[in-house]
Amino acid sequence: MLESHELVVTWTSPDRPGLVHAVTGACARVGGNLTECQQFTSTDTGNFFIRLQVESASSRAELESALRELAGKYHATFCVDELGRPVRTLILASKAPHCLSHLLFNRDAGRLPIDVVQVMANHPDLADLAAFYKVPFQWQRVDRESKASFEQEVLRTVSNLDVELVVLARYMQILSPELCERLSGRCINIHHSFLPGFKGANPYRQAHSRGVKLIGATAHFVTVDLDEGPIIEQRVQRVTHSQTVAQLTAVGQDTESATLNEAVRLFAEHRTFLDGMRTVILQ
Amino acid sequence: MLESHELVVTWTSPDRPGLVHAVTGACARVGGNLTECQQFTSTDTGNFFIRLQVESASSRAELESALRELAGKYHATFCVDELGRPVRTLILASKAPHCLSHLLFNRDAGRLPIDVVQVMANHPDLADLAAFYKVPFQWQRVDRESKASFEQEVLRTVSNLDVELVVLARYMQILSPELCERLSGRCINIHHSFLPGFKGANPYRQAHSRGVKLIGATAHFVTVDLDEGPIIEQRVQRVTHSQTVAQLTAVGQDTESATLNEAVRLFAEHRTFLDGMRTVILQ
Amino acid sequence: MLESHELVVTWTSPDRPGLVHAVTGACARVGGNLTECQQFTSTDTGNFFIRLQVESASSRAELESALRELAGKYHATFCVDELGRPVRTLILASKAPHCLSHLLFNRDAGRLPIDVVQVMANHPDLADLAAFYKVPFQWQRVDRESKASFEQEVLRTVSNLDVELVVLARYMQILSPELCERLSGRCINIHHSFLPGFKGANPYRQAHSRGVKLIGATAHFVTVDLDEGPIIEQRVQRVTHSQTVAQLTAVGQDTESATLNEAVRLFAEHRTFLDGMRTVILQ
Amino acid sequence: MLESHELVVTWTSPDRPGLVHAVTGACARVGGNLTECQQFTSTDTGNFFIRLQVESASSRAELESALRELAGKYHATFCVDELGRPVRTLILASKAPHCLSHLLFNRDAGRLPIDVVQVMANHPDLADLAAFYKVPFQWQRVDRESKASFEQEVLRTVSNLDVELVVLARYMQILSPELCERLSGRCINIHHSFLPGFKGANPYRQAHSRGVKLIGATAHFVTVDLDEGPIIEQRVQRVTHSQTVAQLTAVGQDTESATLNEAVRLFAEHRTFLDGMRTVILQ
Repeated sequence: MLESHELVVTWTSPDRPGLVHAVTGACARVGGNLTECQQFTSTDTGNFFIRLQVESASSRAELESALRELAGKYHATFCVDELGRPVRTLILASKAPHCLSHLLFNRDAGRLPIDVVQVMANHPDLADLAAFYKVPFQWQRVDRESKASFEQEVLRTVSNLDVELVVLARYMQILSPELCERLSGRCINIHHSFLPGFKGANPYRQAHSRGVKLIGATAHFVTVDLDEGPIIEQRVQRVTHSQTVAQLTAVGQDTESATLNEAVRLFAEHRTFLDGMRTVILQ
Repeated sequence: MLESHELVVTWTSPDRPGLVHAVTGACARVGGNLTECQQFTSTDTGNFFIRLQVESASSRAELESALRELAGKYHATFCVDELGRPVRTLILASKAPHCLSHLLFNRDAGRLPIDVVQVMANHPDLADLAAFYKVPFQWQRVDRESKASFEQEVLRTVSNLDVELVVLARYMQILSPELCERLSGRCINIHHSFLPGFKGANPYRQAHSRGVKLIGATAHFVTVDLDEGPIIEQRVQRVTHSQTVAQLTAVGQDTESATLNEAVRLFAEHRTFLDGMRTVILQ
Repeated sequence: MLESHELVVTWTSPDRPGLVHAVTGACARVGGNLTECQQFTSTDTGNFFIRLQVESASSRAELESALRELAGKYHATFCVDELGRPVRTLILASKAPHCLSHLLFNRDAGRLPIDVVQVMANHPDLADLAAFYKVPFQWQRVDRESKASFEQEVLRTVSNLDVELVVLARYMQILSPELCERLSGRCINIHHSFLPGFKGANPYRQAHSRGVKLIGATAHFVTVDLDEGPIIEQRVQRVTHSQTVAQLTAVGQDTESATLNEAVRLFAEHRTFLDGMRTVILQ
Repeated sequence: MLESHELVVTWTSPDRPGLVHAVTGACARVGGNLTECQQFTSTDTGNFFIRLQVESASSRAELESALRELAGKYHATFCVDELGRPVRTLILASKAPHCLSHLLFNRDAGRLPIDVVQVMANHPDLADLAAFYKVPFQWQRVDRESKASFEQEVLRTVSNLDVELVVLARYMQILSPELCERLSGRCINIHHSFLPGFKGANPYRQAHSRGVKLIGATAHFVTVDLDEGPIIEQRVQRVTHSQTVAQLTAVGQDTESATLNEAVRLFAEHRTFLDGMRTVILQ
């Protein structure tokens, strides 16, 4: 018999009366005790979302089996996981170290439940950083000719290493539409502006020209429409007229790191849900 | 038969397995459909808290009756209310208008579900403000001799007008321990500092002397221990060395108004729960 | 002879070596003692900006005369004013009371150095609010036919009442290009989004659709290009997926009021400078 | 002859009429052109503070010599430095890596103008981190017997390596009063609370017990009175009832790192001034 441990359940389905009762009933039947429960019904889409933490002597498989039957009836997708299990993560990066460093530091400090199974880059610069944190690093040049083969390698890695989450940690290449599709719902990017302001290239230069008083960063799920994916987290920082583009960039990079880190945490803790072009964050 | 309407349920009890299922089951049995559900179990105290929004064709009384039986079994306190029903509120004030003005403006704009049944003050200054917003105003001098009679009048008002919430909107008198007891759990004060920093008098002067870089405000439930009641909301604002005590006060008053307003909103929407000396805020 | 009082000097010119020394020298020659000095040189435009506070027994006219000679030599524009003198302000409004109420409350509380010489509106709704704060209010319907006459009336008011600042406090009409030109550099608008995100109509609806996690407000100088004027102040507030458009609007209006109020304060204290399409804020 | 370069001047003295003019005159006489100028006069203490950035073909020595004469007359202390010159810094640490890692990362990224000449610790844990960033690391056990010898070593290091700034990056030992005195005005500590709230040990545990809604960090100059030194920077982060002490600690550590980093930047850019028990920050 298993000792008591904690499971996390996420569930998405069209809304129907009695859903909370039904889902929590399935948990109760296998001896689970809820320690946390957050629920939301979207009036925009009619979708129902719930996240449960369940203290249980039952196994993950038992709870899954109890929910599977229900899920069929309610046309639901659901997931049961051990609370705090590190999510298998692939990070793509280029030259800028700040986001990668922040993620690896926090993972190392035990604050971010991810297992970085691989870092892939289109430049060699971050090899030492990855080595310091003891995560596997590989790189290959990406240009017009080699882009397809790099993306193939990404997909192979995702498949071979059972990757659950791909993080673009200031990876300075646009993914092909095919790759976006394949990674849909499990690929997070950090854009260095407060979207929808300053889409596209050089957002800090744009921000300087426009004379904004706050700069920001946006972590979002990657979709085929660049900079248009569902937003997970946004943060801003106050700036002044006196800051140059270079200074805005420096200030902004701290915001990028923190914003991406928070989005990854929310995903890894099973707190992010897709609701059309928006996210629901249950915390 | 009633048309469909929305009810809000709050429930506090010692934690027991199956509680969410049991409470949501009672809702389901009277035909309620949950549209929101937030739950928290305190590991400090072993208390279980839940807040539900229920779309239902049943009446408030039917749902209450369905829950009453359960509540006995689980040693729970619970409450059922119409969602958005204005909470009957008594505001105590002195001379400073900012908190009262902010509350009345927001109530008037339909953003704050309170019904201000009376404003009582120890100075006449705010009579015109109350009149502009068409809320009853009365005042009487409060000094050592008259304090007891003023507090009697407060209790009479609470009783006669079925007051559910008393708000101290910069009321510059210390309530007697007896009154604190009588209003326990339904009286909110705004303290003009980021507690536990700068308790007591003249917090902005203290903040200036100490040279802090942020000033704040704290809305809390009133208890016999001054400035020690359970905290509902806190906010801060950045300040600099160049600001005088008068300027800190001006900046701070905006923070006080916003902080108190938010605490009142949380209370009026049945989102605040007491958990020992702390609050649980379900939102 | 005048008693000692405090003057504020602002000066803009092409940058030249020795400018701070020259300008402060002119102050010193008429017996002024600097109590505050902020200076900035824009590397984008080569413009030099300085703001001084001067304790002086000399009159405003004496200091102006001392600076006039210098200004010719350096091709400068400058201004000398009594510190804290209320700026003569015309407010345009429509139906929404929040910005007007916030400005009038703060002026009344002595925190905002403006003198509201007139409120003009295209609806009668805010008459009572203006009356409560004892500021003159007039309104007239504005439609295609009457727009030109309303704008003529605005210009007449500006001229007759020596208006120094025009504030669009959620005035829901687009000013004609001619009026924008005539009020250039002395007309402030509040846009209910974090520009450049969500230009145009219904920004809160746009923000909801896009699923942003922060909403904001932008106060800017009015120019012919709508929503493109130099930004004076921006603020944001955190929101969640669960908030409806109506709730975003309610939350946002607090941000609008605070943002516009801050921009007006900066202008009235002579802290805002135009530097091409950007502002320089000396504080 | 020197090429044009940029110098930074800081000056503190009792306030006297004409000071800005006098100090900027000294700069002008050696051919300097001001690119930035911030000034503040403290009404609490009567002290005058100014920070200038000067583009100049003259050497640092020439400008110093021009100011020295003036400084005598005005009883001033002043400093001239090359703008952006890395400040020679000694960091003291214990086991927690977050503050040290953040400082070293930012120095490495060229965002923090410090030269970390030595890291000293009372535990060996951070040796690898220091090695990764190629800064010298030494450690020795500190207990009742060895504390004095460790502090002697600190002072020797300060002297031998011309250390200008000592940073306590979560160094978990109380400095002796003698060492505090010797490092007065050039030693910065990070306290893991929003002072003056939660002085002393275990501030996150205190914050949890008190149920605060924001937690913070305070960077301050070290004085003999523990947690009472002049505050340089403070930041806060929102927390909820549901976060455990461990989670508050994790969230708080990000705030600590950012707050300490900002304080070190302000010091290294010669923006911090002491004004009695407060700081003046010119930026």
